[in-house]
Amino acid sequence: MSEPVRVGVVGLGTVGSGVVRLLVESADHITRHAGRPIVVERGVVRDLEKPRDLPLAADRISTDIHDVSRDESISVAALLVGGLEPARSMAIDLLEHGKDVVTANKALLAEHGPELFDLARRKGRSIAFEAAVAGGIPIVAAIGECLAANRIESIRGILNGTSNFILSTMEEEGADYAEVLAAAQAAGYAEADPAMDVDGTDATQKLAILAHLAFGVWVPWADIPRTGIEQINQELMTYAAELGYRIRLVAVAARVDGRFAMRVSPSLVKIGTPLAETRGAYNAVSIVGDAVGRMFFHGLGAGQMPTASAVVADIIDTVVGRTAITFRTTGVLDTDSPAAQIAGVEMPERFFLRIPVRDQPGVLAGISGVLGRHGISIASLIQHESGTAGPVSLVIMTHACPPSAVQQALADIDASAAVEGRSVCLPVLDDWQPASRKAEA
Amino acid sequence: MSEPVRVGVVGLGTVGSGVVRLLVESADHITRHAGRPIVVERGVVRDLEKPRDLPLAADRISTDIHDVSRDESISVAALLVGGLEPARSMAIDLLEHGKDVVTANKALLAEHGPELFDLARRKGRSIAFEAAVAGGIPIVAAIGECLAANRIESIRGILNGTSNFILSTMEEEGADYAEVLAAAQAAGYAEADPAMDVDGTDATQKLAILAHLAFGVWVPWADIPRTGIEQINQELMTYAAELGYRIRLVAVAARVDGRFAMRVSPSLVKIGTPLAETRGAYNAVSIVGDAVGRMFFHGLGAGQMPTASAVVADIIDTVVGRTAITFRTTGVLDTDSPAAQIAGVEMPERFFLRIPVRDQPGVLAGISGVLGRHGISIASLIQHESGTAGPVSLVIMTHACPPSAVQQALADIDASAAVEGRSVCLPVLDDWQPASRKAEA
Repeated sequence: MSEPVRVGVVGLGTVGSGVVRLLVESADHITRHAGRPIVVERGVVRDLEKPRDLPLAADRISTDIHDVSRDESISVAALLVGGLEPARSMAIDLLEHGKDVVTANKALLAEHGPELFDLARRKGRSIAFEAAVAGGIPIVAAIGECLAANRIESIRGILNGTSNFILSTMEEEGADYAEVLAAAQAAGYAEADPAMDVDGTDATQKLAILAHLAFGVWVPWADIPRTGIEQINQELMTYAAELGYRIRLVAVAARVDGRFAMRVSPSLVKIGTPLAETRGAYNAVSIVGDAVGRMFFHGLGAGQMPTASAVVADIIDTVVGRTAITFRTTGVLDTDSPAAQIAGVEMPERFFLRIPVRDQPGVLAGISGVLGRHGISIASLIQHESGTAGPVSLVIMTHACPPSAVQQALADIDASAAVEGRSVCLPVLDDWQPASRKAEA
Repeated sequence: MSEPVRVGVVGLGTVGSGVVRLLVESADHITRHAGRPIVVERGVVRDLEKPRDLPLAADRISTDIHDVSRDESISVAALLVGGLEPARSMAIDLLEHGKDVVTANKALLAEHGPELFDLARRKGRSIAFEAAVAGGIPIVAAIGECLAANRIESIRGILNGTSNFILSTMEEEGADYAEVLAAAQAAGYAEADPAMDVDGTDATQKLAILAHLAFGVWVPWADIPRTGIEQINQELMTYAAELGYRIRLVAVAARVDGRFAMRVSPSLVKIGTPLAETRGAYNAVSIVGDAVGRMFFHGLGAGQMPTASAVVADIIDTVVGRTAITFRTTGVLDTDSPAAQIAGVEMPERFFLRIPVRDQPGVLAGISGVLGRHGISIASLIQHESGTAGPVSLVIMTHACPPSAVQQALADIDASAAVEGRSVCLPVLDDWQPASRKAEA
């Protein structure tokens, strides 16, 4: 049996504690997979006073990152601190001191990935980050290694467990957004400040990382158009269901004529397709590769042990040397990847429109006229009889059209006297995803 | 740019041709993932006269395996010949001559895996076989590497595309088994001799390989109880649908009290769960790990390009050195793994029984009495009014019970005077799969 490998765990919150537990409790088969024992040498925390029930002696825990970075017996550090700072400084300190880094911090990578990957390469170290996207689903390995023979055509993913929990619970219980969010916070499914989850930031950062792996380009995550789930309500869900759809927060990246279109938005997904069947804190990713065709992955996207599972898999890969190969030998995470310009790249899709109109003659003629002038054709339309005096909802499902045409048409429509308030516009995903003709031949 | 790596492709049938095409047509991004170009140096075929439209010069193709095994410029051989011989002799010849081997031959591995893995280890070479199970789905990497931190609790898979195509087409078109099989053969979805696909052999061999990866034990594939799909007919499908289920050929392996239960059988899978939504030539695998919880993978399980996608990913992994690490450094494919005794390991399940009974008084009392004496309780029961004189179908869904109890009860029932012909007994899969409490905590 080879010498044990010593690991430092920086951050002993939910995920960090899970990693320590897993490394200790599952030591037997982790040793089998790593070819040698993996031992937690030290833990770093912000607050020493916080009570912890961990299989790690108190004298092994400190508040100083240097206790890991300057300990020469430690070769791998799991950086499990969220946010940008001090995570970025910690990552730099660890790499500077020759540690291989494993992290679950998607914000850090989406914001500072190129800088950190470049530093790691210069220091001859690696950064592994399977846990940063879709928790326990091995999507980073799938795109970076398993589908390496493929030109990836498109990715569709439910990448944020909190917003998926909220949307699927609203749907199943007929409850309001605010009510479900409060219940999710009380149950620990949503954070006290859920902004990054519900406004699409978290899913967008993950999409930027997946797009880099799949397409070999860097896209500043803030450039990716994103819409959160805050505006989703029971009325929209009911109309979607009437048309045969559910509403999910979907991240999309696709090749369009040699360029890339990306977005994160609440979307209508057809009932019976796998994204629509993704419930609660589960994540799902659908990928189309030119050779493999449509692949679909589903699993827990967050939570202590699923995320720890991905972190420990990365620690094992790092210990045995697979990460170093992926990171240093191949061009998969090239720091000089071109930056992709995604602004103005149009991916034609179908759209669901909910327009609050005055209940008066000529309104439908006016709106359908505006849509027609922008080249948008109507696939189906719902207007229910209203019992009240206020505006009524006109719901339109369009045929596929460029998003800019819909945006311009809606600006005109919302400015007209027939409309009271603002329209809602959600993209529609009908199929699993367009298939690859090559793969299904 | 490093020197190119030279590859020999042994077998230029459907998959072999796909591999050559992919290596040539997608050379650019394969080079990016491999860190160096991968070049097809030679091809080996059985019949030189067969017309081939391949990007490989005729003088690079021969009928002699030695042209690959003894070519010192070739370091990796893709062995894409089916069946046991000459595939086994070829694998030995390639390994003896220092080639790393990549193969899609599941029969070869299920039958001779330990011998070949042992030879590869002694020669310091590796064998990669992602394409041998579930085609384009990266299930070998998922179990062997990505879920390495998990104790795998169970695996459920639709692992044979031909039988899934037949079952889902029978269901969708209301057609007979023989009719759909003939159409599948005409369309190239089923082979001229489909025995290994429809009798469960192919799925069982794949299950034996997955069970080895997941549990670290070798199970002779022929020891795994298997039932084919030949007995499935429209009557069974209609009763299943009436109860809310579809019929799929499902391979199952699970831990039961420290031992392992395995089987391949047509099974009732609940409509709405992912296995029931797996159609046509698609494969699907659901895995439960103690940390990660329930993972689900879905993709094309066969076909030229999906399988070639997995073979080329393995060639890349071999070229960059990841395979050597997995194969040689870790204990994942230990050739001295214990052999698992699966005989007599009982996994309680629900069962669907279709009993052909005489339409006479006292029959139901007799049958329910036999079931009761074997400790089997009835969850639901269907008997439709019969218009004809012959036996009528009594359909029973049981509560969970040991398979041996059902087998014994059915033997008694089939021997009774009230029964005309033989009963059918299919296991029932209700949920995705029992979840991991640890993962969902």
